[in-house]
Amino acid sequence: MTQPIYPTYPPNLNEEQAQFLLTNLKDWSIAHGLAVRPAPAFVSASQDPSGVLAATAPVTLFPSLFPRHCFEEGFAIQKAYNELYAAIARDEDWLKSIVEELLKVDDFVAKLWHVHLDVKKEGYVQDLTLGLFRSDYMVHMDPSESNAKPQIKQVEFNTIASSFGGLSTQVSALHKYLLSVDAYPADLGAFVKQDALPQSQSVPSLAAGLAASHRAYGSSRSSNPLCVLFVVQDPERNIFDQRHLEYSLTDSGVRSFRVLFSKVLSYTKLDSDRNLIYTSPHAPGKLYEVTTIYYRAGYSPDDFPTEGEWTARLHLERSRAIKCPSILLQLAGCKKVQQVLATPHSPHLARFLPNETTAARVLKTFAPIYPMDKSEAGLEARRLATNPETAQRYVLKPQREGGGNNIYRGAIPPFLSKLPESHWPAYILMEMIEPPAQNNVIIRNGEVQKGGVICELGIYGACLWKNGDGAGSPGQILENREAGYLLRTKGNQSEEGGVAAGFGAVDSCCLVEV
Amino acid sequence: MTQPIYPTYPPNLNEEQAQFLLTNLKDWSIAHGLAVRPAPAFVSASQDPSGVLAATAPVTLFPSLFPRHCFEEGFAIQKAYNELYAAIARDEDWLKSIVEELLKVDDFVAKLWHVHLDVKKEGYVQDLTLGLFRSDYMVHMDPSESNAKPQIKQVEFNTIASSFGGLSTQVSALHKYLLSVDAYPADLGAFVKQDALPQSQSVPSLAAGLAASHRAYGSSRSSNPLCVLFVVQDPERNIFDQRHLEYSLTDSGVRSFRVLFSKVLSYTKLDSDRNLIYTSPHAPGKLYEVTTIYYRAGYSPDDFPTEGEWTARLHLERSRAIKCPSILLQLAGCKKVQQVLATPHSPHLARFLPNETTAARVLKTFAPIYPMDKSEAGLEARRLATNPETAQRYVLKPQREGGGNNIYRGAIPPFLSKLPESHWPAYILMEMIEPPAQNNVIIRNGEVQKGGVICELGIYGACLWKNGDGAGSPGQILENREAGYLLRTKGNQSEEGGVAAGFGAVDSCCLVEV
Repeated sequence: MTQPIYPTYPPNLNEEQAQFLLTNLKDWSIAHGLAVRPAPAFVSASQDPSGVLAATAPVTLFPSLFPRHCFEEGFAIQKAYNELYAAIARDEDWLKSIVEELLKVDDFVAKLWHVHLDVKKEGYVQDLTLGLFRSDYMVHMDPSESNAKPQIKQVEFNTIASSFGGLSTQVSALHKYLLSVDAYPADLGAFVKQDALPQSQSVPSLAAGLAASHRAYGSSRSSNPLCVLFVVQDPERNIFDQRHLEYSLTDSGVRSFRVLFSKVLSYTKLDSDRNLIYTSPHAPGKLYEVTTIYYRAGYSPDDFPTEGEWTARLHLERSRAIKCPSILLQLAGCKKVQQVLATPHSPHLARFLPNETTAARVLKTFAPIYPMDKSEAGLEARRLATNPETAQRYVLKPQREGGGNNIYRGAIPPFLSKLPESHWPAYILMEMIEPPAQNNVIIRNGEVQKGGVICELGIYGACLWKNGDGAGSPGQILENREAGYLLRTKGNQSEEGGVAAGFGAVDSCCLVEV
Repeated sequence: MTQPIYPTYPPNLNEEQAQFLLTNLKDWSIAHGLAVRPAPAFVSASQDPSGVLAATAPVTLFPSLFPRHCFEEGFAIQKAYNELYAAIARDEDWLKSIVEELLKVDDFVAKLWHVHLDVKKEGYVQDLTLGLFRSDYMVHMDPSESNAKPQIKQVEFNTIASSFGGLSTQVSALHKYLLSVDAYPADLGAFVKQDALPQSQSVPSLAAGLAASHRAYGSSRSSNPLCVLFVVQDPERNIFDQRHLEYSLTDSGVRSFRVLFSKVLSYTKLDSDRNLIYTSPHAPGKLYEVTTIYYRAGYSPDDFPTEGEWTARLHLERSRAIKCPSILLQLAGCKKVQQVLATPHSPHLARFLPNETTAARVLKTFAPIYPMDKSEAGLEARRLATNPETAQRYVLKPQREGGGNNIYRGAIPPFLSKLPESHWPAYILMEMIEPPAQNNVIIRNGEVQKGGVICELGIYGACLWKNGDGAGSPGQILENREAGYLLRTKGNQSEEGGVAAGFGAVDSCCLVEV
């Protein structure tokens, strides 16, 4: 937290103002599916055995202030980021050099890699890949500069199961609605106004990405109708986030189904041409050929409780369906990749983004990231991380996707002292991003909490490409678009994000000139 | 209940089919605001003090079968019905002759009438009236005919607070969605198909009625911005039904506010020109001039617990705002009016609908209705109602709006024996409509109930007119449209409708040729 750059915000509300705002917010949210299934601690399964209850999703009462030029920069470079990760996922040799280091220390990465090797041995039968990405940023104010201009710094780049695209379209519409009915005090009008509140187009844009993949798959080879398959977790409290994408897909004429990751082997099979055939349990006589596998599960080791899930993943990867993402694209999302790109003076970015201007612009969004290995940069990182004083400016992150296991600042040295040194390379050390101080009000589970917050901007991207042929062709990008945004806001006393996990709220931007 | 006319329906579902249907239904309903606030017995106020929870509205799992020609006839005559009730509300002398009889026995009607007289004494300052109507029908099979063709018979005509227009658009979209994702077994395809499932346009059409009134009001006389005012009950569990209309109005650029009936005198005032000025408690400095008062309260004596509500009603009626409905239009909705029109050989219909063909078509939808007074028809009714055998084919209804107090069949004679004869004219006697047997499955509060059902078709109408000048001009209809439909379905063991009151579900039509 650094010096304040924003106007005083949000205002204190009197009782009538708070009631008007909350009543309108609660009714609008349910009327428009800005909702979650209630947590078991809020509504027990025995109270609502058939699951008809829902609650307003955790949201902010006000759109959070966000520097306009930072927001615009995030959008401006999203296609370059899409291109970058599409290039990484196509460069197996490079990716192998990165992953190899992790194989011994990260069992999850190792198993994913072996799924890839198994499919490769047999030969891939699909050369298209779909990426639905989200690049997450925080606004950073360099604490060493007295007149620092705010800039965005990347927190992480998600290549699998990028969530909240469904709800973020709704929450930006909610805040615009609340403004339109004067639920925000009139004296905010100088900066809280409709053209300062960008409408996130994440729902139609992400659905358009899936639809583009569906069309690019071509016609059915098995003579069955085509569908997109959502591979999902159970239970899923954040179900409406996914459903909004499904409904948008349905509206565009694309059929989709949901299958639990644990049931993939029961309801799908490969035919002799490795077409992926799906049968819904409710209509066992009707077969569908899957064009696109959209993973909303499989990003964390928790999704693989038994060997059965690994068998299922291999089964899906072997198929002709387009994967969103493929194994290689999922691995491209490793923190290790982010670290290698963001290590100062790294040569790698230029390899994937030959355009120097573009590469420089992307580079500016990296916060310094160090490996925890025995390279020169790694040894420097180890010094910074084990010293309680210097550790204060850093966060230690596991290579894996998912969040929830980051070690912050003063907690790093004691954590490392208990961890065998051989496991240190499973982590990366990243300079903390120092966001400007700001406040907001969050409602979650019906509780209203006001205070200091930290905002994370996610820019979605949709990218469809053809892989290289292994014989010199570098492949080709067929579709590349930015796909709306998410603002995710959490109390600044917590260090973790993740609205569904219980630490934050979905939000939208009120753009300000700072 | 008479002989079956429909195919066997709905089908029995196996566990997988039921789960697929219910999961899709529950998710779609919340994602699209087909919801209600949960009943206190389901979720207590202490569990959810800020009211963020909502539940799937009570709905049928399948669209109910409904004869196509009956559905079409309801739509075909709705404009005539609008015209009829607009004419009745403009004919004060005629209405007075009807109401006068009730004044001594129905305190509620008497008080409404006196509000009218008070305003009349001072002089009305608004000559436009808006009606948002719902004409409710059941399919009737004459039990005395062996090959009776199903026809619609009117249950009642609502001139105030016609509800479920918001949810009925959603429920017909729900059933069409469920069909589109093959949630209904494929062998139903012979008759359950998209073009047999009419989409109810009640939300946009009712909102268009309110918007037409808002525009017809003209420009502000008080130099304040204009708004529509929803006068509502507290608490309102069926809030989303109303909110969908508000959001549709907002989308068409018309500002609206909600005010509790009990708070009308706190937040509105009449200026010296009797313009109705509304101030929201959350922004006391901002004044609005009300163009249209839309009553979603005030239709039942329960809404007037103190003299304060009568003062508020007089206050609103005195204003220049267009009322939906005016006192006279509300009174036109008395059962007594329906009875007078439907008494065999009544001359009244011709008075209001001079076109003979139109009048004959409307007449065909009346079930025989008798007064309970001492006229010739009334004496006949008393004989029928007090004889336990003949009473079996009748229902005794109070003149008042609202439902919940009907006396059916065998219960009529003992009821009348306890009621002083002087109070009998507060009721009308109506021949029971005998609907064909049919089944459906209802989900409410998470409980799934399957069995015989009774369906009630409501056709909405929107009508805006100019009253006569009292000096010979009969007035003029400015807008007249049908405005979508509602199908309301209840278990056939219950005799009362009213989904919000806890006895039924919202439904949509699957039109069949019978």
